[in-house]
Amino acid sequence: MTSENDEQRTRVTARDVAARAGVAISTVSKALSGRGAVRRETRERIIEIANELGYESAQQASRAAGRTATIGVIISDRFGRLTVPLLLGAIEELSERGIALQLFDGRGDPIREQHFVESLRQRRADGILVAGAGLYPRPPIRGGTTVPAVYALSWSTSPEDSSVVSDDAGGARMAAEHLVATGRNRMVFVSGPRDDAASQVRLAATRSVLSENGLTLAHHPIFGSWSEHWGRQAALQLMRSGVELDGIVCGSDQIARGVLEALRESGVDVPERIAVTGFDNWDVVVSASRPTLTSVDMNLHTVGHRAAELLTDKIDRPSPATVLRVECDLVLRESSALG
Amino acid sequence: MTSENDEQRTRVTARDVAARAGVAISTVSKALSGRGAVRRETRERIIEIANELGYESAQQASRAAGRTATIGVIISDRFGRLTVPLLLGAIEELSERGIALQLFDGRGDPIREQHFVESLRQRRADGILVAGAGLYPRPPIRGGTTVPAVYALSWSTSPEDSSVVSDDAGGARMAAEHLVATGRNRMVFVSGPRDDAASQVRLAATRSVLSENGLTLAHHPIFGSWSEHWGRQAALQLMRSGVELDGIVCGSDQIARGVLEALRESGVDVPERIAVTGFDNWDVVVSASRPTLTSVDMNLHTVGHRAAELLTDKIDRPSPATVLRVECDLVLRESSALG
Repeated sequence: MTSENDEQRTRVTARDVAARAGVAISTVSKALSGRGAVRRETRERIIEIANELGYESAQQASRAAGRTATIGVIISDRFGRLTVPLLLGAIEELSERGIALQLFDGRGDPIREQHFVESLRQRRADGILVAGAGLYPRPPIRGGTTVPAVYALSWSTSPEDSSVVSDDAGGARMAAEHLVATGRNRMVFVSGPRDDAASQVRLAATRSVLSENGLTLAHHPIFGSWSEHWGRQAALQLMRSGVELDGIVCGSDQIARGVLEALRESGVDVPERIAVTGFDNWDVVVSASRPTLTSVDMNLHTVGHRAAELLTDKIDRPSPATVLRVECDLVLRESSALG
Repeated sequence: MTSENDEQRTRVTARDVAARAGVAISTVSKALSGRGAVRRETRERIIEIANELGYESAQQASRAAGRTATIGVIISDRFGRLTVPLLLGAIEELSERGIALQLFDGRGDPIREQHFVESLRQRRADGILVAGAGLYPRPPIRGGTTVPAVYALSWSTSPEDSSVVSDDAGGARMAAEHLVATGRNRMVFVSGPRDDAASQVRLAATRSVLSENGLTLAHHPIFGSWSEHWGRQAALQLMRSGVELDGIVCGSDQIARGVLEALRESGVDVPERIAVTGFDNWDVVVSASRPTLTSVDMNLHTVGHRAAELLTDKIDRPSPATVLRVECDLVLRESSALG
């Protein structure tokens, strides 16, 4: 992971980069350290030129020399439904690259995180991966570290930081488009808590697909919790309301499984009368549902892999801040089969 | 993690240990390296004396000096139901101790494992944790490494190795004793594949509790797969058989959930007429079951913690081979409540 061209490394200086970019040396230094005010376009251009020329800052060179092949991973929710596949994907990617990791559960507490960042600095870790517990923005880690960091799933609110996220809206669009394509036109949206970003993003994407097809929801969206129990309740509530439905878009697989159980016990045929979709593609839930459940897979394992990959690339050479979006997949099963 | 008493460390020699133990110096060396034929009792006595005297072998001292605070973790089944909590427990324990880890999925292939052990040696890892995917014995890792190793969940067949396992039989006993204590006396055992060690160990423990209480199974044990689908089928098969039952002991939560669904749909009251128990205490399954499911928790997270703890202790100082058994817990819920 060190540069292949030692000769070049000793020749290119910040002065060369500044000359080529037509900026002051101090601007190069600010741009490459990511500390100090530099316009985003300027910064990206300087990084590009520095990479082209094979420039390494003194800090970078010393880091390459002293690399420990160890990175710190900060999670916020140790057994979280989303944290686990994300973490496993990242661990696999790091391990394939011969990089060890030290894990820390910050529990979303900035002070705990800062303490860990400090201990990582003492250990001379090469980088930090911050794995979120859900689909929401988060402040950058504290600690003023100059070690490269990448955020996964939850994205950093700082435009200086790089994040890898799931294309949640794209996934919700896939489910809605599938229902529209199979002739459903009286749909309802059932999700977890109203103010969860996941509920809101998925609802907006669903509505936008309906609107593009000249449709609207047949019932106002209903919000509750991320559980099977809530799914059952929501389905009973919908049946009691008397509204005509032919599709139920659920915000999670657990909600969808509850919905399917209630429909089954009320003698409503799925998918003949009502199609149902989930979100998460959680194997134990989708395959045990009756009928089996069509669901959106956020590819969290891939999100973890990509985040670890981006981080190790950044450790090798600086790169502009970026937000990578990992596409979702729609996995078709019986609950939405064509009639 | 280095000895607190540097003065003592330089004074005690293998000769001192040999003198105290009344054996040859070569025997001390064999006993402490774990290589070479030494009677088990002799070996344990030598280790005890070495620890008492604060003796460190040259190898150990050099290891302490060159410690990398990195250990290798070998798993066999990356997304395995049992692997994940075990791995997370181990990672947490290591991270709390400031130890980084490098993960490797050996997929149960000795050649792949050997390759990884070699790469760990190059990295100068301090130890190896081998996390199994199930409750069965496994051969020791190959590669003739002298690095300390601990096996978790699956135990090593070599008496030289240390393992941390779940007390599976104890857990099964708890479930059976609970059913007997609540007055059930016509029980049946439904499990996954017949030749899985988990099926056999749990069946034997169940039978032994019944026998201690002057009971026998009311129906021969039935084996299938570890799925909800199989649980439903098994329950239907039992109802068709016409046998009188008041308890169904299931080999897993997924089987139990299927059993509960079939009983519910056939109008059989649980727990009034039939009590049902699961195994795994898998939150998403036990809490969504109707009624909620009484289950045995193998405390896999604790198994992972203890294994990591034992390994780091062994890195600090040699200790005799041991097999630690982590107790299970029986978690009572509605499916077996008192009438």
